[in-house]
Amino acid sequence: MDIEQFRKAGYAAIDAICDYHASIPSRDVVPSVAPGYLRAALPTAAPEHGEDWATIAQDYQDLVVPGLTRWQHPKFFAYFPTSGNFESILGELYAASASNPGFNWLASPACTELEAVMMDWSAKLLGLSAAFLNEGGVGGGVMMTSASDSSLTAITAARTRYIRHIARTSNVDIGALDAAHPGTDSSADGSPHRAVPQPLIYTTTQTHSIGLKAGLVLNLAVRALPVYAEDQYALRGDTLRKALEEDERAGRGVCVLIATIGTTSSGAVDNVKEIAEVAKDYPHLWIHIDAAWAGMAFSCPELRPLGYLDEINACEGVRSVCVNFHKWGLVAWDASTLWVRDRKELTDVLDVTPEFLRTKEGDAGTVIDYRNWHLGLGRRFRSLKLWFVLRSYGVEGFRAHIRKCIALNSLFAALIEESPIFELVTAPSFALSVFRLIPGSKGAALSEAKDKDREAGAEEALNTLNRAFHTALSARTDILLTQTTLDGTFCLRFAVGSQRSEEVDVKWAFGVAEEVGKGVLAGLDAAAAHGANV
Amino acid sequence: MDIEQFRKAGYAAIDAICDYHASIPSRDVVPSVAPGYLRAALPTAAPEHGEDWATIAQDYQDLVVPGLTRWQHPKFFAYFPTSGNFESILGELYAASASNPGFNWLASPACTELEAVMMDWSAKLLGLSAAFLNEGGVGGGVMMTSASDSSLTAITAARTRYIRHIARTSNVDIGALDAAHPGTDSSADGSPHRAVPQPLIYTTTQTHSIGLKAGLVLNLAVRALPVYAEDQYALRGDTLRKALEEDERAGRGVCVLIATIGTTSSGAVDNVKEIAEVAKDYPHLWIHIDAAWAGMAFSCPELRPLGYLDEINACEGVRSVCVNFHKWGLVAWDASTLWVRDRKELTDVLDVTPEFLRTKEGDAGTVIDYRNWHLGLGRRFRSLKLWFVLRSYGVEGFRAHIRKCIALNSLFAALIEESPIFELVTAPSFALSVFRLIPGSKGAALSEAKDKDREAGAEEALNTLNRAFHTALSARTDILLTQTTLDGTFCLRFAVGSQRSEEVDVKWAFGVAEEVGKGVLAGLDAAAAHGANV
Repeated sequence: MDIEQFRKAGYAAIDAICDYHASIPSRDVVPSVAPGYLRAALPTAAPEHGEDWATIAQDYQDLVVPGLTRWQHPKFFAYFPTSGNFESILGELYAASASNPGFNWLASPACTELEAVMMDWSAKLLGLSAAFLNEGGVGGGVMMTSASDSSLTAITAARTRYIRHIARTSNVDIGALDAAHPGTDSSADGSPHRAVPQPLIYTTTQTHSIGLKAGLVLNLAVRALPVYAEDQYALRGDTLRKALEEDERAGRGVCVLIATIGTTSSGAVDNVKEIAEVAKDYPHLWIHIDAAWAGMAFSCPELRPLGYLDEINACEGVRSVCVNFHKWGLVAWDASTLWVRDRKELTDVLDVTPEFLRTKEGDAGTVIDYRNWHLGLGRRFRSLKLWFVLRSYGVEGFRAHIRKCIALNSLFAALIEESPIFELVTAPSFALSVFRLIPGSKGAALSEAKDKDREAGAEEALNTLNRAFHTALSARTDILLTQTTLDGTFCLRFAVGSQRSEEVDVKWAFGVAEEVGKGVLAGLDAAAAHGANV
Repeated sequence: MDIEQFRKAGYAAIDAICDYHASIPSRDVVPSVAPGYLRAALPTAAPEHGEDWATIAQDYQDLVVPGLTRWQHPKFFAYFPTSGNFESILGELYAASASNPGFNWLASPACTELEAVMMDWSAKLLGLSAAFLNEGGVGGGVMMTSASDSSLTAITAARTRYIRHIARTSNVDIGALDAAHPGTDSSADGSPHRAVPQPLIYTTTQTHSIGLKAGLVLNLAVRALPVYAEDQYALRGDTLRKALEEDERAGRGVCVLIATIGTTSSGAVDNVKEIAEVAKDYPHLWIHIDAAWAGMAFSCPELRPLGYLDEINACEGVRSVCVNFHKWGLVAWDASTLWVRDRKELTDVLDVTPEFLRTKEGDAGTVIDYRNWHLGLGRRFRSLKLWFVLRSYGVEGFRAHIRKCIALNSLFAALIEESPIFELVTAPSFALSVFRLIPGSKGAALSEAKDKDREAGAEEALNTLNRAFHTALSARTDILLTQTTLDGTFCLRFAVGSQRSEEVDVKWAFGVAEEVGKGVLAGLDAAAAHGANV
């Protein structure tokens, strides 16, 4: 394809994207395709000879578009909605045209520098402490693929920091981990790196599975600390202290605590105020703040106390903070942002510089070589879409989006509270509500459900009912909600985040939930009348 | 930005990209910007109010474009050139407009299915064994960010497979690693996962730094096996066997060997034929083939024997193969492709499924949920650009690109061989030549350089000379070459891969190298005349 062919194909692509986006509200949220639909429609191997672009572009429309789940749909309330707005699409387009792996400053100075500045803009937007800014030269921020990537990187650094600390205090040789800026040749050896007992990762039972997955990848044991319904599933200081004391007595080290601001399950906010108090007694515990979703709310000053931002900023134990602009933050996949209080804690483990990657700027230490801040080498030019979004919306527009989503969720939560057939399972959090269907009169069900001594059987019956409710909702293609379990309670999640969602969509969604819920309850009543055991 | 504003901005972006690409040949390869140039040009924080798009788009042209290193430039011969052609740009554009995190099949059926089919198309293009195809349901392929990501994933799986094997045979409890499809709640414990001694990673001294970096991340010791100039830096079977026997005697396990087809340093091809023979006696050794760059040559049947493709396909010990379409393979960043012989070896360690990620299709096992094949959760829609490229070029067009690059490199290598002031340091490999400047008459220098008993001083003087040569070349902005060291010998790399490079560019590049080299030698002679010690 030459330049003029690209111009023509590009215009056509822009038009097709306009048409697609215009059609989204009238399309289903969930595509009606069965597993294997696309494989059946495609040849089994690449064509021998090149095909013309018009055919390829038409096949994209005919075969791929019908199989897309519409994450930008106003009635998408599942997982955490993503944005993927037009500014982001333009960011990805320009970034692709620059084609840069961005591992070194020299690989494209603009890529590294824009990322460093955008991470500072974002930190300021969210009210993060100056300690996390690139401009300070000590801490800094880097754009990652996903919160999993950010967590895994932070935990890798935390584990190394822990091992180095233990090795220093007990005079153990840790081989390559000891070497500063090792090259490939010099650090090759078979020495025992594992002389230091491996530390634990702390999560809570409500932490996202990325915690457990990091444990499996890094082969570190994960201890999930208990959290309780009466605390809205937030980790409390006493629980943390008790666990640390137990593990200390048992001779087990702990390298990191993942504290979540807004869990995926229910939006729980771990109590960083109390955690910070405990951390004073455990200076080598790395606290990683996973605010992947709710961290976007820090853009609004009035919401910062809800996420303990002051305590996050003040606590030296908080070594890293992750938020995802690609969830609630108006930027398309992938745009996970990770800040650290000390960049050296990343480069201490991730800087490996063979001769063929050396540059005079890197050697001089005057630039950031971002490859030494993450697990891989090559990286995408992600900062461009962030720049485009922040400039196009401004701080004001960004905040308006966040506040609107929260208002819409409050509306939904109010409707749930007023309804005789639903209850909130835990308090609404930012733009997320967790609710379930309840049979009989609400008062009775609530007291039943919240009674600590309730029968396991009754709770299991409620779970069965709600699974049926979820199955019935999931059979529809015009709306998407996802499910979770909280301490054994099966419930539905309602997450607002799409830029296109409006009051009318939320009211409509509630109406659908009510209609489906009533149908499920009617089936229950009918079954009860026939003496069936639910 | 609304739909009509996007249409206008999109057309303008397409035009701007056309202009940029048309201008590339007349621009420098390396931008003339100093560290900090962009930070100085940007405000220190995001604007309070949204700005209009025309201003933002103009700033991209004025501030970012001048700071881009032009990887698509016909005179870019550094690292491994990337493609970033128009088909890829359109793939990224459409993918961004779909905005899908793609972690589950349901997250967008089209994304998962196209990826699964494209991995099969690619495997067939490269002549990989049917064992690696998704369509077989046992092995399969997945698209990753980079070769680092692919290697880290393969090594993680290899380590887990090793630990499970040892645990099974010695009856050790390995906690969460033992659990099938663990959720977050059930596997939370503090049990000793580390009861199994940690195994080694094998690389060679010429393996890319991703091997050592994986060791640092996973906290596994790396043993770099020696390779020799007389073998063109390829790993031989005897070296591997000797190391395995040594480590076995010392009670050290080895979980993985990274065997490279085309090292970054010099294009060395580890001897998989001999490695496969040794592997017969070590059935639990996972061999990961890193053919990130040279694997693209497998698209041409006549080149397959050079990379031991038959042996890779036949050897059961080869559990994973990585090639990067985003290097030599005409597809823009990021498009690293990883195949495994048994997908269960990935999901055994990477499948963590909390309630909120369950789907009925996933539970039924009828679909691939790619989140369980990689380290993270969310993922990009990378297969679209691969589909566009493979269809637009066809197998024939793809092969033509590979063959053309090899021919251009052969031309360069021939010019080096004919030149009195240069020598090839090792045999040219595919589209890569490694060479250096030599003083005096070539015959004398060659015998001096290749003499095993040569003085260290003479070799060091040659290195100093070549560092000066590299520095002089790097001072130019109209060409980019990078450097490496081979067994202590400093040398220059010349890598062909840009779609735009033609004979005229290669001849011009040789002319520049000759001119700069003569200048450096003249300086050397002048210094000698003045009695300086070089």
